Amino acid sequence: MIDPQRARDELGPLVTGALSDDDILDRYARVVWNSLTEPGDAAAGILTGSLGAFEALGRVRRGDISDSILEPGEARAAMQRWEPRMRPGTVSGVVRTARVARLRLVTPADEAWPDAVDDLGVHAPLALWVRGDPRSIAAACAGVAIVGARAATSYGEHVAGELAAELTAVGIPIVSGAAFGIDAAAHRATLAGGGRTIALMAGGLERAYPQAHTDLVERIAATGAVVGEVAPGSAPTKWRFLQRNRLIAALSAATVVVEAGWRSGSLNTAHHASALGRPVGAVPGPVTSAASAGCHRLLRELQATCVTTAAEVRELIGWGELIGAGDGESAMRTTDATRVRDALSARVARTSQEIARRSGLGIADVQSHLGILHLSGAVTADAGGWRLA
Amino acid sequence: MIDPQRARDELGPLVTGALSDDDILDRYARVVWNSLTEPGDAAAGILTGSLGAFEALGRVRRGDISDSILEPGEARAAMQRWEPRMRPGTVSGVVRTARVARLRLVTPADEAWPDAVDDLGVHAPLALWVRGDPRSIAAACAGVAIVGARAATSYGEHVAGELAAELTAVGIPIVSGAAFGIDAAAHRATLAGGGRTIALMAGGLERAYPQAHTDLVERIAATGAVVGEVAPGSAPTKWRFLQRNRLIAALSAATVVVEAGWRSGSLNTAHHASALGRPVGAVPGPVTSAASAGCHRLLRELQATCVTTAAEVRELIGWGELIGAGDGESAMRTTDATRVRDALSARVARTSQEIARRSGLGIADVQSHLGILHLSGAVTADAGGWRLA
Repeated sequence: MIDPQRARDELGPLVTGALSDDDILDRYARVVWNSLTEPGDAAAGILTGSLGAFEALGRVRRGDISDSILEPGEARAAMQRWEPRMRPGTVSGVVRTARVARLRLVTPADEAWPDAVDDLGVHAPLALWVRGDPRSIAAACAGVAIVGARAATSYGEHVAGELAAELTAVGIPIVSGAAFGIDAAAHRATLAGGGRTIALMAGGLERAYPQAHTDLVERIAATGAVVGEVAPGSAPTKWRFLQRNRLIAALSAATVVVEAGWRSGSLNTAHHASALGRPVGAVPGPVTSAASAGCHRLLRELQATCVTTAAEVRELIGWGELIGAGDGESAMRTTDATRVRDALSARVARTSQEIARRSGLGIADVQSHLGILHLSGAVTADAGGWRLA
Repeated sequence: MIDPQRARDELGPLVTGALSDDDILDRYARVVWNSLTEPGDAAAGILTGSLGAFEALGRVRRGDISDSILEPGEARAAMQRWEPRMRPGTVSGVVRTARVARLRLVTPADEAWPDAVDDLGVHAPLALWVRGDPRSIAAACAGVAIVGARAATSYGEHVAGELAAELTAVGIPIVSGAAFGIDAAAHRATLAGGGRTIALMAGGLERAYPQAHTDLVERIAATGAVVGEVAPGSAPTKWRFLQRNRLIAALSAATVVVEAGWRSGSLNTAHHASALGRPVGAVPGPVTSAASAGCHRLLRELQATCVTTAAEVRELIGWGELIGAGDGESAMRTTDATRVRDALSARVARTSQEIARRSGLGIADVQSHLGILHLSGAVTADAGGWRLA
C-alpha cells in the first residue's frame, strides 16, 4: 500500500489543517474510493463503515473481501464493479483538477463534515467536494431545500423567489441544485437577500453545470458553498443527478418542490426526503399547468404538505408560529350568534320575542346574544326593539 | 290534535300516493315541525326519532316533553325555541305557497326519501321540499358535490365545468348549491352534457336564490331536482345556508371544492362531508390566487385529497380505475439500467468492459442489461462494441 508521507505528498493541497497519519491515510483512501464507486454504493458504505476506508481499500486491492461482512455474492458483485476502475495515477489526476479548481475535500474526520448525511446510512457519501466555505454545509442542514422544474413557468419562478427571499429574511439557509428554472430562482433570491445558499452538483465541481450558470455557481461559492460527491473530472450523468438528489434531501431539514412536471427529477428528491423522514412540501399550482402536475402528484401520492407561504414552509421545519387556527374554526363552524344576527334587520326594529321566533332560539338565549352584540356595537336598541347597527 | 281526514284535507296537494292514516298524520306533523324548527335542530330530531313526528308534536303542544328522552334543560331550551313559532294557520299558509310553486313534500315514509341523510343522525332533516323529480335525490347520493366560491375566477369556473362535464359523460350525477360562480358552472356543464344535477337551496323553493339564477334553477328542476328543507316562504338566512351545506355533503358520495376563499362557505360544506366520513377533494390553484386559498387550506387542515382531473374525482367515490401507479415508481426510483444507459454513447461504440467502468457496475450486470436494452432496440452492437440506437 502507501505510507503516510507519500499519501501526504500525493494529496498536496487536499490536506488542510494538522492531520494525524491515520487521518491522512483515511483521506487518501477516500479519494481512491471516490473514484472506484458511483454515489450511493452500499457495499462500499458497509466496507468502509466497518473496516475504515484505508483498511477496506487494502482488502479490495488484495482482492480479499470474502471474509468481510459482505455476503459472498454481494462481495463478488462489488469487486466486479470496482475492478474496472482500478487504475494507477487516479489520485494525482484528481488532485491536479482539484488544485486548479480550488476544490476542498471534506471527509467524516473534518469538523465541517455534516452529520446529517449519516442519515443516509450505507448510502452516505464517502467524501464531499466543496467550493466555498465548507462550514456552510452543516449550517444548511437546518435550512430548506427549494427544488423544482427546469422548465419552470414565470409563476413557479416567482413563487420560488418569494419563498427563498422570505426564508432568507429570517435567516433560513436555502439548498438547491443550481439547475435552470426553480433552482436558479431560489439561489438568486437568496443571494439577492444576502442569505446563505448551497448548491449540490451532480458532476465534478471544476465546471458548472449547466454551463450557463457559471457565474451563478461562482456567486454561490463566494458566500455559501457548492458541493458534490463525485471526483473532479466526473461527468454529471443521469444516475449521478438522481444520487445528487439524495444529498439535497439529506443536507436540508425539509424539501419543498415548487413546480415539477409529472416525471420531474425533483419528485425523486422529494422521495429521498420522505425516505429520510424529512418533511416534504409541495407548492400547488393551476391543474391546467403541466409544470405543477408533479407537485399535485406529491400531494396525492406522497402525502406531501401543501405549502403556499413562507410561514407554512417554516412550520415544516418547526420554525413557524401556529397561524390561523382560530380563524379556521370560525369559518367552518357556526353559532347561535349567527342565527340571532340573521333575525335582525338594519331597517326595522324587532322585539326579542320576534327575534326568538325568527331565529328559532329560546328567548333567554336570544337576550344573552343580543346583550353581547350590543356590547360589541353590532346592534342598537331603542323603544321599538333591536336592530343591526 | 287533528284527525286524519282533516289533516288530509289541509295538506291537499302535499298528499301524493295512497297514504295510510298514520302516514297522513306523520306528514302533517312534519309540516308543522318544519315551521317550528330551524334546520338541524337536534332536540326535534331526538323527539321525532323516538316518539314519531305526530306523537312528539302532540307532546310539544301539550307542553309535556319533560318525561321524554331529552334532558330537562335541553327540553326547556327546546320549548323556548319552538313556542314563539307556534301559530295557527301555519299549515294552510305553507300548503298555499307550495301549491303555487308546485313543490312536493318528501318525508321518510316516501320511497323517494334519500337514506343518505340519515347519516346526519339527530341533525337529519325532518322533511324535504322538492321541485322536479324526487327520485333524482336518491340517485344523486351516488354522485359528486362540486362546490366553491361565488367570486370564482375564470380558472375555477373552467375547472368546475370540465370536471362536471367529464363526470356527467360517465353518468355521475352532480350536486351543488345553485350559487354564482363554481356552483353555477358545475350545474350548467352538467345540464349541457345532458346529465342529472340537483341543487340544494337554503331558503323556500318558491323562488330562486340568487334571483338571477331563476332560469338555471328552472332547468335543474326540469331534468333533476331542486331541493330544500325549510318551509316554503322561508328566507335564505346565513344559518340556513350553513345548514344547507350539510345537506349537500350528505346527499353526495364525495364533496369537491374547486375554488374557495379563506373563509368561503364551501369550507363549511367540506367540513360537514368530512364529519360524515365522506371523501373531500380540493382542486389546487395558484398560491397567488386568493380564490384558491380555501382549497389549499382544506389540503393542509382537513387532509383533503388533492384532485386535478375527473379521473381523480372518480377515485374518490370508487368509480375510478387505478391510474399511473406504475409511472410513479419509475419517475421516483432509479435502476442500474439508467447507469448502463448513462455509460453508452450514440456516437462512439464502447466495449462491455468500458461500459462497466463508466457505469460502476460489474461486467456481468452490464452484459445482462445490455442484452435487455438490445432486445428492446435501445442499443445496437457491432464489432467495436455497444452504442445507443
